[in-house]
Amino acid sequence: MQHIVIIGGGFAGINLAKSLANNKDFSVTLVDRNNYNFFPPLLYQVATSYLETSSICYPFRRFLRGKKNVTFRMGEFKQLKPTENKVVLSNGELSYDHVVFAVGAETNFFGMENVRQNALPMKTVNDALELRNYFLQRMEQATRTTDPVERDKLLTIVIAGGGPTGVEVSGVLAEMKKKVIPKDYPELSGKGFESHIYLVDGGPKLLAPMSEKSQVDTLNALTKMGVEVKLNSQVKDYKDDIVTFANGDTVATKTLVWAAGVTGSVFEGIPQESYGRGRRLIVDEHNLVSGFSNVYAIGDTCLQSTDKAFPNGHPQVAQVAIQQGKLLAKNFAASVTGKPQKAFRYNDKGTMAIIGWNKAVADIPKPKLHFKGFIAWLMWLFIHLISLINYRNKIRTLYNWTSAYFTRDQTLRMIVRPDGEPPVKG
Amino acid sequence: MQHIVIIGGGFAGINLAKSLANNKDFSVTLVDRNNYNFFPPLLYQVATSYLETSSICYPFRRFLRGKKNVTFRMGEFKQLKPTENKVVLSNGELSYDHVVFAVGAETNFFGMENVRQNALPMKTVNDALELRNYFLQRMEQATRTTDPVERDKLLTIVIAGGGPTGVEVSGVLAEMKKKVIPKDYPELSGKGFESHIYLVDGGPKLLAPMSEKSQVDTLNALTKMGVEVKLNSQVKDYKDDIVTFANGDTVATKTLVWAAGVTGSVFEGIPQESYGRGRRLIVDEHNLVSGFSNVYAIGDTCLQSTDKAFPNGHPQVAQVAIQQGKLLAKNFAASVTGKPQKAFRYNDKGTMAIIGWNKAVADIPKPKLHFKGFIAWLMWLFIHLISLINYRNKIRTLYNWTSAYFTRDQTLRMIVRPDGEPPVKG
Repeated sequence: MQHIVIIGGGFAGINLAKSLANNKDFSVTLVDRNNYNFFPPLLYQVATSYLETSSICYPFRRFLRGKKNVTFRMGEFKQLKPTENKVVLSNGELSYDHVVFAVGAETNFFGMENVRQNALPMKTVNDALELRNYFLQRMEQATRTTDPVERDKLLTIVIAGGGPTGVEVSGVLAEMKKKVIPKDYPELSGKGFESHIYLVDGGPKLLAPMSEKSQVDTLNALTKMGVEVKLNSQVKDYKDDIVTFANGDTVATKTLVWAAGVTGSVFEGIPQESYGRGRRLIVDEHNLVSGFSNVYAIGDTCLQSTDKAFPNGHPQVAQVAIQQGKLLAKNFAASVTGKPQKAFRYNDKGTMAIIGWNKAVADIPKPKLHFKGFIAWLMWLFIHLISLINYRNKIRTLYNWTSAYFTRDQTLRMIVRPDGEPPVKG
Repeated sequence: MQHIVIIGGGFAGINLAKSLANNKDFSVTLVDRNNYNFFPPLLYQVATSYLETSSICYPFRRFLRGKKNVTFRMGEFKQLKPTENKVVLSNGELSYDHVVFAVGAETNFFGMENVRQNALPMKTVNDALELRNYFLQRMEQATRTTDPVERDKLLTIVIAGGGPTGVEVSGVLAEMKKKVIPKDYPELSGKGFESHIYLVDGGPKLLAPMSEKSQVDTLNALTKMGVEVKLNSQVKDYKDDIVTFANGDTVATKTLVWAAGVTGSVFEGIPQESYGRGRRLIVDEHNLVSGFSNVYAIGDTCLQSTDKAFPNGHPQVAQVAIQQGKLLAKNFAASVTGKPQKAFRYNDKGTMAIIGWNKAVADIPKPKLHFKGFIAWLMWLFIHLISLINYRNKIRTLYNWTSAYFTRDQTLRMIVRPDGEPPVKG
């Protein structure tokens, strides 16, 4: 029996583990620093108080019940010792026959230390809760301050990054500004203030990988909703409540949400030459990391240029991770039975982004179709709902969405933090 | 128009604010250090992962919508300046015509510094989340450790305090030990270990204020479920993973849950002579604090000996707080219209505690009745459900309870903490 260690239980890792479950040729250890899997496409709804954490999270141990050859290990990757076939975790070591890196990507601050310290990223559940607490605290401060300049800064939000996360966050915030804020913060009415929601991107387009129709629809919809979109505007610095752009423009704000880019992680024990563009691990068509015979990488953390349609590597999206996880499991099984291994080919099922209530965009590659508005929104809801990891999450989320749809509101705006008094960042 | 400042939005404060809403003679500011009201009787279900936070919490601002004369202010009480009719908060000052203290009670460690540092209290939502994270982390550690002595300590839990909280927590944990742990932590099976759940109390009885029948039923039920009840066992110290009792007995454990007592808070600006037993503020029959003409206290934080049936003060329970909050609102209204004020009389509607699935005890004073088992359990569920603050909370909780009832399980065992890597206490 061969022992496979999977580092990371996101889309890639969990699909690999699931597909290897109850395969008698393998024992599997799934390692994650959290004890739960979560659904990143809905993080922005946790951050904006539209969903509770439990709607998008599921404990690994519960998920692995009945999968007798798969063990969960909570711990953080520290080092690979390839000559000993061992991984060192924050709390011990594991021996492996095969090790698979499936840790996803991390937020890229592009070396801007002030941005790293003062902006709010949106990659993890902790980030999303931090952001929720932060938004709500800023609103409370705005009700208390007597300084109008300070109030404007508290009520202005800059979201950097025109990808799906940036579009989704700015859309929700624009709707909350209209529907929720006047009702919940009556103290603010009558006090003159300037409250802006800026969505900024260094490039010339929103949702760059989508069709031009989707890009234009999104820009128009967001603008109509009151989001001020600034394209070709690269953030250069953020300190003393001032966001500075490459062209010298500035915006005064207490809140910079950072969804402007991701990068791969550095893994101690993997040599420099195994990393490619975006610090992703270079892998062959079977997801074997360059320079190794039993170290693999799948999902956002790898760079595979063997897929003819994607010579510069795949987009870092959920579908690639899921498909790579499933195929790697098949290839492991094939290696035991002596069957030939299959090369990975990405089957692109389409891309979508939600902008607001009844508003979304969707591109389907085969046949080439573009949807927008209510239909795209329904598609988005349906696909995200069925993608949730288990039945409980689906029910919970459906209930939350249904009631939010009818009330255009939610009741989750609690500043909750398990270790006492919330600190204030920035 | 008179300005009433209410410090604390628990059962007492929120009922006072609600009863004063839309009364044109008063403007009201409700101050709380959190931005949400919560339902303490169900905290233990949050701590044991049976309910999510959002089931028992509700944002004040949402609650106060449409109550035009009531404003919410997030902040912590720092000081009373009675000569200036001002309260100083952590983030500003408020002037008042009347100020009402409704802050509840806080955990009493009886001066034992080691217990304060190493034990886990159960009074706030943050406490409950801390406890949940802590339980789950201890289980993860138990699956990893190779030291059998360490494993026993990780899997043994001591709950101090035989009141409703202690009974409820130990009951849930005993059920989880039987139904959930073997399925979620298969690594532990086969490894010999001693796992104990101790419920300890310094007095001779569990649920001391309840009827003897209820006390005996509870003791029997818990014992049958595997809880080891140690009465007349006062905790004297807790350090280096050892709980030491007054009689010299010790238990080795990494987890001491502290539900053994409460105390009133100290309010800067209120003189020593206004405090009574348990550091509660001495009030007259109209809840006016002794020595003041416009400072009031209601709920757990006050001590009222003018109610004939309760010459030593009322029990510190929700019903007293609710009734005092409502009556004080009526008395404020009466003071304006010149009607006579009413003295507070507590109407005891009964006491109940839940022990486990299908098991609870309930005492009703008029007519004197005792219920146990399934009927008491249904009563408990029903009363707690209708007591939740709003419709959303009720639906959410009903759904959680129903699914938990049928599966005897929940899917909320996530270690979530908004500021990164969970620290380990103790």
